[in-house]
Amino acid sequence: MKKDASFSYRAWLQPGNIEKTTSSNVFAEGDNCSFAQEECILGIAELAVDCDVSLCIDEKLPAEGYSVKFSENCVKISGGCTSGLLYGVYGFLARVRMGECPTTLDFSSKPAVAMRVINHWDNGDGSVERGYAGKSLLWKDGKLGYDLDRLKDYARLLASVGINQISVNNVNVRPLTAKLLTDEGLKDLVIVAEIFRPFGIKLIVGVHFDSPCWIGGLKTSDPADEKVAVFWKEAAARVYNAVPDLAGFLVKADSEFNLGPLAFGHTQDIGANVIAKALQPFGGILYWRCFVYNCLQDWRDTTIDRPKAAYDTFFPIDGKFEPNVILQIKHGPSDFQVREPNSPLLGAMKNTRQAIEFQVTQEYTGQQKDMYNWAVQWEEVFSQPFNENRTTRDLVGSGKEVEAVVAVNNTGDDDNWCGHLLSQLNLYALGRLAWDASLTAEAITKEWVSLTFGKKAEIFEPIVKMLMDSRHTYEKYNAPLGICWMVCIHHHYGPSVDGYEYMKWGTYHRADTKAIGVDRTSKGTNYTSQYQPHVRDIYENLETCPEEMVLYFHRLAYDHKLKSGKTLLQHIYDTHFEGVEEVEGFIKTWESLKGLIPDEAYTSVRARFDMQLENAKEWRDVINSYFYRKTGIADAQGRKIYE
Amino acid sequence: MKKDASFSYRAWLQPGNIEKTTSSNVFAEGDNCSFAQEECILGIAELAVDCDVSLCIDEKLPAEGYSVKFSENCVKISGGCTSGLLYGVYGFLARVRMGECPTTLDFSSKPAVAMRVINHWDNGDGSVERGYAGKSLLWKDGKLGYDLDRLKDYARLLASVGINQISVNNVNVRPLTAKLLTDEGLKDLVIVAEIFRPFGIKLIVGVHFDSPCWIGGLKTSDPADEKVAVFWKEAAARVYNAVPDLAGFLVKADSEFNLGPLAFGHTQDIGANVIAKALQPFGGILYWRCFVYNCLQDWRDTTIDRPKAAYDTFFPIDGKFEPNVILQIKHGPSDFQVREPNSPLLGAMKNTRQAIEFQVTQEYTGQQKDMYNWAVQWEEVFSQPFNENRTTRDLVGSGKEVEAVVAVNNTGDDDNWCGHLLSQLNLYALGRLAWDASLTAEAITKEWVSLTFGKKAEIFEPIVKMLMDSRHTYEKYNAPLGICWMVCIHHHYGPSVDGYEYMKWGTYHRADTKAIGVDRTSKGTNYTSQYQPHVRDIYENLETCPEEMVLYFHRLAYDHKLKSGKTLLQHIYDTHFEGVEEVEGFIKTWESLKGLIPDEAYTSVRARFDMQLENAKEWRDVINSYFYRKTGIADAQGRKIYE
Repeated sequence: MKKDASFSYRAWLQPGNIEKTTSSNVFAEGDNCSFAQEECILGIAELAVDCDVSLCIDEKLPAEGYSVKFSENCVKISGGCTSGLLYGVYGFLARVRMGECPTTLDFSSKPAVAMRVINHWDNGDGSVERGYAGKSLLWKDGKLGYDLDRLKDYARLLASVGINQISVNNVNVRPLTAKLLTDEGLKDLVIVAEIFRPFGIKLIVGVHFDSPCWIGGLKTSDPADEKVAVFWKEAAARVYNAVPDLAGFLVKADSEFNLGPLAFGHTQDIGANVIAKALQPFGGILYWRCFVYNCLQDWRDTTIDRPKAAYDTFFPIDGKFEPNVILQIKHGPSDFQVREPNSPLLGAMKNTRQAIEFQVTQEYTGQQKDMYNWAVQWEEVFSQPFNENRTTRDLVGSGKEVEAVVAVNNTGDDDNWCGHLLSQLNLYALGRLAWDASLTAEAITKEWVSLTFGKKAEIFEPIVKMLMDSRHTYEKYNAPLGICWMVCIHHHYGPSVDGYEYMKWGTYHRADTKAIGVDRTSKGTNYTSQYQPHVRDIYENLETCPEEMVLYFHRLAYDHKLKSGKTLLQHIYDTHFEGVEEVEGFIKTWESLKGLIPDEAYTSVRARFDMQLENAKEWRDVINSYFYRKTGIADAQGRKIYE
Repeated sequence: MKKDASFSYRAWLQPGNIEKTTSSNVFAEGDNCSFAQEECILGIAELAVDCDVSLCIDEKLPAEGYSVKFSENCVKISGGCTSGLLYGVYGFLARVRMGECPTTLDFSSKPAVAMRVINHWDNGDGSVERGYAGKSLLWKDGKLGYDLDRLKDYARLLASVGINQISVNNVNVRPLTAKLLTDEGLKDLVIVAEIFRPFGIKLIVGVHFDSPCWIGGLKTSDPADEKVAVFWKEAAARVYNAVPDLAGFLVKADSEFNLGPLAFGHTQDIGANVIAKALQPFGGILYWRCFVYNCLQDWRDTTIDRPKAAYDTFFPIDGKFEPNVILQIKHGPSDFQVREPNSPLLGAMKNTRQAIEFQVTQEYTGQQKDMYNWAVQWEEVFSQPFNENRTTRDLVGSGKEVEAVVAVNNTGDDDNWCGHLLSQLNLYALGRLAWDASLTAEAITKEWVSLTFGKKAEIFEPIVKMLMDSRHTYEKYNAPLGICWMVCIHHHYGPSVDGYEYMKWGTYHRADTKAIGVDRTSKGTNYTSQYQPHVRDIYENLETCPEEMVLYFHRLAYDHKLKSGKTLLQHIYDTHFEGVEEVEGFIKTWESLKGLIPDEAYTSVRARFDMQLENAKEWRDVINSYFYRKTGIADAQGRKIYE
């Protein structure tokens, strides 16, 4: 960690605030423990560790697993491999940071899923798509890897929560990052790989499906063309020659103006397999995104329903993909909205490898101006039923279904990494959940608050409560009951109820003076039929459909009575007034922490809350005015709604 | 004109299609006629001119005026100055192009206003703000004047319709174009000035109000600061040393995030005068735009009304400006909308020089995808009453009020200059109207069609009719009855009824389930009080307010009966269905011209009509669905409105 690191920069790797009385030794068995040893020495130098530590590889342990046990005046940390050992060191240090006494430690751990991945949507020019924390940590002026010291600190943060793969460039590949397939781009990739390698983090390269034309000088990128297959083989060989332990490639094809196999009349497997085969000699994975839908839909055409697209595209070709293809499926069928059901594609394909894709970045969830605890939503995602016996959580790390957890990065070169200090929690939580999907949001939030702010009750408890509330507060002032997309177009911050309503993006609420929503049941678009029968029935039936997402599935009149006894319209008004009040409550809570937490942290978060309050008011007033203007029905409590 | 010039490139300077039988001489008296002589020789070489031509300066004529008279076997063209002579040559050539026999010519002419100006909103990177005809003709890669041959052809086009000033850079000045005040930028400006000078066209430089900081290295741009005054004096001296006949500077201050005197607590005159004084030693003009309004308005605040802003800002400081300041006032109080009243500021200031600003470019009027004849709207603008005795037309060229006509360019490096071939009419019309404000749209349109396509009735008549209809057809499918702003945000093409409704731009229709519009009468925002009493009364009164702009002034219920007997809502439905039908009619008309006009012209315009038809349908359906969803009231004729 750089010497002048601020509180915010250190994130969850804070030093202890005690004076060291004795120094302790860190013993390592064998050369392959040396990096873990370095990291351990660095860590304990700042912490209340007065005993010795010994490190070793124990191949009987699960490869990335570890055990930590105090015995014979020494903390013994064993890992199944160098990475496992490193995770053991970080796990040990975290326990100490959270106040546990080294001499009482006795625990072991192993990751739930093998691939725990951050996707950087970083562009070659240093901008970050959907990034709200400054410029890219990775790219500047078309060059990868411009600040290697900071990258090392970043790698440590990621590894300390178990991330073991990162993609280095935006899935929307543009000419500057496309050159990663060329000798010129690979020079830099080698350097960056060297930074991340000791931390057990492998790199992924985002490649454009049209690379055979862009890079290879071919006249087609048709995956059925033999020259195209040769291009991909040569490209893979070139990249693996430079970075032999590359994790693989990532492709966004047939998606939002990126070329894909559809353009040549092929199904997705034909497009994926030609690249996957090229990666096979090197053990590389091909991550192939499932965000394939018609982004030029005619809003008048009610026969198309965008949430159906991924399932319709991929389910019929289950089993046709090469064994090193992993389909990367967004957790919801829309796009990281505040409230959606899970994608029906998750777990549906029995013969295709799958990754679940989250956003750590807060594209639709406050853009790191508003506080938003993703972990609470992820816990809800994991708790949604897959069928009558299993939840989505059961799919993750089952060894059969979801074997990778991927998330889009929320980091940038802001001093605090994430723009909003409290958004560091989301990065932390992603790693922790990918490691152990059974962790609750509350447990993770408590870990993070403890690591960052310590455990003093007057600090710890209010921050935990605020963070646990944050997701539902944001939802209250956002689009109601799973309707989604009432957001300003393109940049996705702030309300615009009709913003996407008549656009080509396939996202419509069709609100009129009487009702709102798209009927996605068997009487409507029949989207519900894509779910396993048990779940289909839950969503199909208005009585059993979870009310918080009822407008995702049903079209309802404004006077529809909710379980609370309120009408739908009154619920909208009430939640939007409540949302703002809750943000005002957050501000009061935060102000109670002044002087108790570092000034820098206090001030930066306080400033974010001002932005959040303005945003919450804007959402409240726009949503309420919109529905008031559309229905002519006033708030039952007579609160201010602008005409 | 370049040798391989296409039909579209030649625009209204088409060659005759007859074989020359004899050659004719062009005599010139004195050296200062030599450029006009060159132009005349070039022109008649392609036209049916068999007699000689003689050119001379006659200082008894108005400076830019001219006379053309055939006598003694020779067409005698006299100009009040070199520019006047040049206009005489172009006027003569135009008459011949339109089929008049040189031997019958006997006419004279002079411009109504002294300054006939095109403002280029061209950026240093080659993009054109609100440009729909390719890249900039002026700028590329930060450099001004990269294709001097084409610029010469451009200068000829402009001069041929009497344009005598152009600004060379966007009023939103950015660092690349800000360097026009530096020695580096001036090198290129000198070269471009040399191209335009012989055509009688003077350059204007757009300058940023914050130039003292940007360019001068000062710590403030406060116009009351003595160092700032020195900066402007030195900058003016530097520019005039390079281009002694520069027309002056153009400033957009306190407008849409551009700094201005308000930021320092000053009124606009304080900001303008410091720059104006710096220009005085060189006879330079300062054009100071009046587009000053709060672009960060809270939509909830009904006490602010954006159309009032220009008058409120400038009327109180009438008479306080230096004599070389010209206030540049947009024709309407909004922003080049399809239908607005005239700005109440026009003519209101008795002791301040004024320019009227139009757009030749079609920012809100179809973006050169849709056919739109600005001349029809400009005729309506000119015909609006200023008071009980005078129309706005009477202000233009009166010698007291509007002494400059300015328009934002519609040109770019597309082969046909304007993106849409038929948009060339707008550039032509702007020059003609600035020259002679009494010309009717029909007269100008006929001139242009005759010059471009010839006078054969089966070509001429349908094209004239289509162009004369185009403005009202576009209006029919656009925002109804002067409500304005129902347009996609930022890019301004296509419908978005609520797009600006909850934004900070100050543009609201406040439609609810019963009514629409902002009451701008004395019972509402009292905007009407800014007009001269006679006009105020017209707009104030629902009975006398012109119905085509009734929603600019009045809030009306959807069941309000219009003079046609239709309800407001049914009028909206009807006009939107009609608009699409009329575009379909244009396509039929155009298809009847196949084979009669050059293929290139036929094909390019036919392709634009496809875009226009799609746009018209989008407008029809979005507007109609919006109001149907909001009111629940169906179309009386049962036509398709999407739910």
